[in-house]
Amino acid sequence: MTYFDIEKVQYEGPKSTNPFSFKYYNASEKIGDKTMAEHLRFSVAYWHTFTADLSDPFGVGAAIRDWDNLNDMDKAKARVSAIFEFMEKTGIEYFCFHDIDIAPEGKNLEESNENLDVIVKLIKEKMDETGKKLLWNTTNNFTHERFVHGAATSSNADVFAYAAAKVKKSLEIAKTLNAENFVFWGGREGYESLLNTDMKLELDNLAKFFKMAIAYAEEIGFKGQFLIEPKPKEPTTHQYDTDVATAHAFLQKYNLDHVFKFNIEANHATLAGHSFQHELRYARDNQLLGSVDANQGHPQLGWDTDEFPTDVYDTTLAMYEILKNGGLTPGGLNFDAKPRRTSFKQEDLVLTHIAGMDAFALGLRVAHQMIEDNFFENIVSEKYASYQSGIGQKILNGEVTFKELEKYALTLTEITNESDHLEVIKSQINQYILNINSKG
Amino acid sequence: MTYFDIEKVQYEGPKSTNPFSFKYYNASEKIGDKTMAEHLRFSVAYWHTFTADLSDPFGVGAAIRDWDNLNDMDKAKARVSAIFEFMEKTGIEYFCFHDIDIAPEGKNLEESNENLDVIVKLIKEKMDETGKKLLWNTTNNFTHERFVHGAATSSNADVFAYAAAKVKKSLEIAKTLNAENFVFWGGREGYESLLNTDMKLELDNLAKFFKMAIAYAEEIGFKGQFLIEPKPKEPTTHQYDTDVATAHAFLQKYNLDHVFKFNIEANHATLAGHSFQHELRYARDNQLLGSVDANQGHPQLGWDTDEFPTDVYDTTLAMYEILKNGGLTPGGLNFDAKPRRTSFKQEDLVLTHIAGMDAFALGLRVAHQMIEDNFFENIVSEKYASYQSGIGQKILNGEVTFKELEKYALTLTEITNESDHLEVIKSQINQYILNINSKG
Amino acid sequence: MTYFDIEKVQYEGPKSTNPFSFKYYNASEKIGDKTMAEHLRFSVAYWHTFTADLSDPFGVGAAIRDWDNLNDMDKAKARVSAIFEFMEKTGIEYFCFHDIDIAPEGKNLEESNENLDVIVKLIKEKMDETGKKLLWNTTNNFTHERFVHGAATSSNADVFAYAAAKVKKSLEIAKTLNAENFVFWGGREGYESLLNTDMKLELDNLAKFFKMAIAYAEEIGFKGQFLIEPKPKEPTTHQYDTDVATAHAFLQKYNLDHVFKFNIEANHATLAGHSFQHELRYARDNQLLGSVDANQGHPQLGWDTDEFPTDVYDTTLAMYEILKNGGLTPGGLNFDAKPRRTSFKQEDLVLTHIAGMDAFALGLRVAHQMIEDNFFENIVSEKYASYQSGIGQKILNGEVTFKELEKYALTLTEITNESDHLEVIKSQINQYILNINSKG
Amino acid sequence: MTYFDIEKVQYEGPKSTNPFSFKYYNASEKIGDKTMAEHLRFSVAYWHTFTADLSDPFGVGAAIRDWDNLNDMDKAKARVSAIFEFMEKTGIEYFCFHDIDIAPEGKNLEESNENLDVIVKLIKEKMDETGKKLLWNTTNNFTHERFVHGAATSSNADVFAYAAAKVKKSLEIAKTLNAENFVFWGGREGYESLLNTDMKLELDNLAKFFKMAIAYAEEIGFKGQFLIEPKPKEPTTHQYDTDVATAHAFLQKYNLDHVFKFNIEANHATLAGHSFQHELRYARDNQLLGSVDANQGHPQLGWDTDEFPTDVYDTTLAMYEILKNGGLTPGGLNFDAKPRRTSFKQEDLVLTHIAGMDAFALGLRVAHQMIEDNFFENIVSEKYASYQSGIGQKILNGEVTFKELEKYALTLTEITNESDHLEVIKSQINQYILNINSKG
Repeated sequence: MTYFDIEKVQYEGPKSTNPFSFKYYNASEKIGDKTMAEHLRFSVAYWHTFTADLSDPFGVGAAIRDWDNLNDMDKAKARVSAIFEFMEKTGIEYFCFHDIDIAPEGKNLEESNENLDVIVKLIKEKMDETGKKLLWNTTNNFTHERFVHGAATSSNADVFAYAAAKVKKSLEIAKTLNAENFVFWGGREGYESLLNTDMKLELDNLAKFFKMAIAYAEEIGFKGQFLIEPKPKEPTTHQYDTDVATAHAFLQKYNLDHVFKFNIEANHATLAGHSFQHELRYARDNQLLGSVDANQGHPQLGWDTDEFPTDVYDTTLAMYEILKNGGLTPGGLNFDAKPRRTSFKQEDLVLTHIAGMDAFALGLRVAHQMIEDNFFENIVSEKYASYQSGIGQKILNGEVTFKELEKYALTLTEITNESDHLEVIKSQINQYILNINSKG
Repeated sequence: MTYFDIEKVQYEGPKSTNPFSFKYYNASEKIGDKTMAEHLRFSVAYWHTFTADLSDPFGVGAAIRDWDNLNDMDKAKARVSAIFEFMEKTGIEYFCFHDIDIAPEGKNLEESNENLDVIVKLIKEKMDETGKKLLWNTTNNFTHERFVHGAATSSNADVFAYAAAKVKKSLEIAKTLNAENFVFWGGREGYESLLNTDMKLELDNLAKFFKMAIAYAEEIGFKGQFLIEPKPKEPTTHQYDTDVATAHAFLQKYNLDHVFKFNIEANHATLAGHSFQHELRYARDNQLLGSVDANQGHPQLGWDTDEFPTDVYDTTLAMYEILKNGGLTPGGLNFDAKPRRTSFKQEDLVLTHIAGMDAFALGLRVAHQMIEDNFFENIVSEKYASYQSGIGQKILNGEVTFKELEKYALTLTEITNESDHLEVIKSQINQYILNINSKG
Repeated sequence: MTYFDIEKVQYEGPKSTNPFSFKYYNASEKIGDKTMAEHLRFSVAYWHTFTADLSDPFGVGAAIRDWDNLNDMDKAKARVSAIFEFMEKTGIEYFCFHDIDIAPEGKNLEESNENLDVIVKLIKEKMDETGKKLLWNTTNNFTHERFVHGAATSSNADVFAYAAAKVKKSLEIAKTLNAENFVFWGGREGYESLLNTDMKLELDNLAKFFKMAIAYAEEIGFKGQFLIEPKPKEPTTHQYDTDVATAHAFLQKYNLDHVFKFNIEANHATLAGHSFQHELRYARDNQLLGSVDANQGHPQLGWDTDEFPTDVYDTTLAMYEILKNGGLTPGGLNFDAKPRRTSFKQEDLVLTHIAGMDAFALGLRVAHQMIEDNFFENIVSEKYASYQSGIGQKILNGEVTFKELEKYALTLTEITNESDHLEVIKSQINQYILNINSKG
Repeated sequence: MTYFDIEKVQYEGPKSTNPFSFKYYNASEKIGDKTMAEHLRFSVAYWHTFTADLSDPFGVGAAIRDWDNLNDMDKAKARVSAIFEFMEKTGIEYFCFHDIDIAPEGKNLEESNENLDVIVKLIKEKMDETGKKLLWNTTNNFTHERFVHGAATSSNADVFAYAAAKVKKSLEIAKTLNAENFVFWGGREGYESLLNTDMKLELDNLAKFFKMAIAYAEEIGFKGQFLIEPKPKEPTTHQYDTDVATAHAFLQKYNLDHVFKFNIEANHATLAGHSFQHELRYARDNQLLGSVDANQGHPQLGWDTDEFPTDVYDTTLAMYEILKNGGLTPGGLNFDAKPRRTSFKQEDLVLTHIAGMDAFALGLRVAHQMIEDNFFENIVSEKYASYQSGIGQKILNGEVTFKELEKYALTLTEITNESDHLEVIKSQINQYILNINSKG
């Protein structure tokens, strides 16, 4: 069976004669010393693309999928076929999943694990056949009602134990499938209300949980990068891994900052009141930028919309940070994004990924050119020039005290600041974007 | 004296050899049947560009201006010279002002009016000399402490009277200077708290005030378009003219909807929880789109940042609405925008306007091409095709009742909706932007 | 079978000896000239209390209900028994429902209507037996995937027809069950994106739909009050009935403002950027305050949380507006509220309603006392005293023009405003709350 | 001269016969083992109460103050008299200031320091006379235009030096006046835009600056507690000390976490997307809760409104955290709050402080009673009971691994969670508030 007839799965648009296909993404084209595929390391998200049904709090699932009428394990197997066909046809090299995305939960933990074993074996075969790779896997410790009070931060010790057992299994899967990373997104690790929450106990438990995970990964020889994915709210009122800085404080407090890096999601950044670039920069400056969940939020909406990324300003600045980071390897760009509920057809899965890949390819082209030109670097080095000599250099070198600085300040008759002409910089970014050519 | 040495007033950028100048705006270039200048009708805002000092709630003025050290009327006169030089050198044809932008308030109303007379005479001479035009003027009934409780909605009848006298004078100035429009922005027409506010009395008074203004305009033969400028909050907690729809309700209630149109500001739209395009569309659909305050807000900030517009997505969709409106005449695109506080030099006034003009010129080029191609029109006509025949046509024509619709619905075995492929549309907008060439 | 063992359904709390029960609500106690029950007209919401399962976008249903394992019509019948027992035991006199809350949809419209007929008959019998009343019913035209593009504003005419048939049936049910009101909440009447939306056609269609509903209600002799329930966003990006003012503009434009009033929901008000009191006041000032969806949002969350109301500031100010409105009859206070997902037991349905009823009873007590004391009335009349004589009186009476006001203003040597001591008012509200005694 | 005629400075309200005075605050009343004054350690903020003029971005100063017409040093001296009279008459024991609040800046640093010396001497005399104390002082390194690009994080090394000299002077003043704490609020330590910001260099410089400050404090023997005051935005787009967790990450990274604690402001917490209680709890759990800026924000506004605190829910939960922290000493409750612009009279300074003090006194009474009853403690200990024995205890003690937890989880046939009845807790908080009596 074929799920994605890519020659047909093309959006014509009203009266258009042009099929919708890649305009800016060209896997093998060299951008600098790497191909676009090497730079971008795209990944498809199992949950949004193959498991989710486009339901929302006010509506049932609207997605139309070929596997809708299959049951349980048959459905699970069909999805495996579908995702590998999908990767083949879109040219995406990586995928990501939660445990329950790939196999249905059984009536108990044992049965759930058996289901996982069946599907993991199938996935392994497909990986071997196709060369496709697992960017990361993770554990869904939030959907089932047992996680109503959280998982590692649940008030119920049985739930902590159950969550641990599920992460253990996920680490084994990671090992089996050579996952390049392993992600912890907080799920319900947070609180509905502080009124009845022992935040200190919960965070202590979360740290204990992470340490057990590290120990077990070492035990089984799993070498992938551990990643935390921050989010400020939703589903809980307050998620403990609020943003990169908050999770950085946590990691430092519990001596975990040398083990974890971050998986940064654009929409989570904006929900936290930051720009996407800010979160990337914070992580990069602290050698903590691990991977990216590539999507975008909606500026008028206060929840996680997980839209496919199409805003070229955002993809350009994201790719700038990623290029300056020396790339994301072993991380990648995972499309933690779903079609709008009004884009409910199976072909929309292809169309949306093309849209997202093209937007990031465009961002890569623009950011690469800017770096070639030292565009931002020149702006910054001129702006901070006063720290390259004299009193500024002494400050940077830690060679002065308040007393010496006061002595110096008393001699200043006038201080001259420079305008930073920020609006011109924004205008020049437009020019960079407009001057980028499409794929060769 | 020369204020803007435009040959020198160019941003070089670090190590750049290219001066910063127009890349997309070309006044005389034809886009369709009009020149870019005719389409865009740019206007400079007296207050941000010539009166404001870039102070903020945590800092004093940072702007450096040639007229900083002049006093009162000398400063007012210098600003008149400066704005006309500015318009000449940037190629902007229109300007806008509040009464107190152009002349200092005197020790009482009489003296204030005398000051205005002096400057208005000077402006008139300059207008005659240069051919520059007044897009609109308005009255500042919010800065002085007498307006602490509002103006037309003040709890103090003396303040209502004072505000009326000031608008009367402004209307006379509008008549004298052939203003093409006259704007009412709410200022402090709103409430700090409902706890001590008689909202009904205040809104009734506001309507009375508007009716007196209309009557006086008729009396003196002022023919300009009256415009309301909505804003949801700031300075008051709740501004009465919250957004276009709210003000539309007000206008209808008080039978004012055939006299007023709207002056829509991008940043006010986003503060109200809408997109800029939404506010433009609502007004356009109701034949109420009068003029535009061209700026942009900051997605992470909850106050009016009045940034110069540089986001091409926004300018493209704005220009789409404006072109579909048949243009804005007698309205225009007024840069109600200020340089960032870190762009404090006089040259930044030129640089920021070039950035804003170029962004709108780019938006015009893209939107024009989309309309040439019937890009959005085709999408919409295909999406709503079911209303062109059969039951849909009857619905549109008002030829059916619930009973007939039920009878029809009972025959429907299955309802088929179409995916709207929204992500593809967004991707195609990127392609439109990337394919636009710069000025010929 | 008994669902709510109210003697046992009491929250003891850790080591507490006091069961959780009404502290401030006393149905028969007179507050002014009416009993508390007459003032408060509480209603239970079928959907949150008997149909919903406490799922959220990241989790399956967590609610534990006695009817969980029943199928279809058996479940529907069990819920009828449960709601009448619930109303009896909590002393709530009214209920509200959407069509699909009470009976499962069939395989087509005909079968759905047959299911409704069965349950409506059962409900009618229970109503006759118990004297409980239907505050309002409404139609769910948003959950099913056929409504993916909206209902009355769908781009698909078949869906418009189907939606019409469903509202027709709901009106017949309203007539049968003597509903005191009939509500239209927008559901998906709005847009996901303006890029592919013909907003004008959609709003014209919505108005046509309402007019057909009015005609059909007249035809069958349904006399209940029609209500619109505004909401700014969710599930769509932009909901057409954004807030009271927006919907007021719509009603005026289409000459519907004499037929409709508003059902105002607290959480929808705050999502729209307003206070709950603001929306109530706007409606009251325009004789449009019909009914209330009593809940509260969360100040740190950007979506509809539908919490049970417990904030006494909000309930006090809401009850102030309602008392000044002369009550809500034929409207009421419907608990459009759900227990938190962490309050998943059946007993929580009782506990949460007690919490909400007590909070509104407390608000009623405080607001009544304030009105007895003319607390706000005195503040306002003193604040606006200048409009009671002299120039102010002439303004109110429409006896002046700008010319006369200018003449008057020229005589003003100084304008004196009064401080409004807002902080004292807030402090006094605290004193009012603290001084209220619990139920006699 | 007398500034505050407290017998007359009473708000009567319309037709009221009751003056506005303390209802809940009684300095000498014992609450537990301390007096209310010892618990609450109120402080008046020099800037809002004696220096600010109630201007806003759309209006000039509206405050009417006795010292309005004095010049420079005379005005500074009058303010010293006023604040000590104010503290005497309101019973406030502490005050706080920035350097430029107390003395005008001179034409250079030397002259500024001379002005400070004059006023500090005067303040010292008044402190000795009255026994009033300095809770903390700080340095205003953000208002003057030289700080346009920040202070310790300025791109201009001269500004870094100047800022250092100012903090040096402030530390000397702190030493002279026995300040119990020394505060760093970020001011413009943040960025307008990431596009031209070297965030890493700026944060490294900030850490260097703090270390120099610590070294200098040690050198001069200043023993007060160093405090960081987080704020997420305003005046800059992104403030580096975003919230407590972010600043905690910074402090840990630069090994500063054993020197600094936090000064937590309610309104800054809500601007950061947190509840006030959350920020207090985070700091308390990490032994970092130093002091509090007592105010409140507005739920509908996105900027720092600095309202006087009147919300009893907030003051109750804040006082709960403070009592559980063992109080704030050497910190306190500083009213970083200003009258609304419509409360512009001098008497409003007294009235607003009474409102704020009463709200916190009420919060203290309620929180104390809750702690006496172990209200929250019982809820929490019951909720987390599973960690007191069995597998839970082993988890807490770090005695298990993933393997053992999996073994345990495999034995779980069903997991039972408890409902947390959150709505009941909220209702019981209302009961606590209503049952609190006013001052004895």
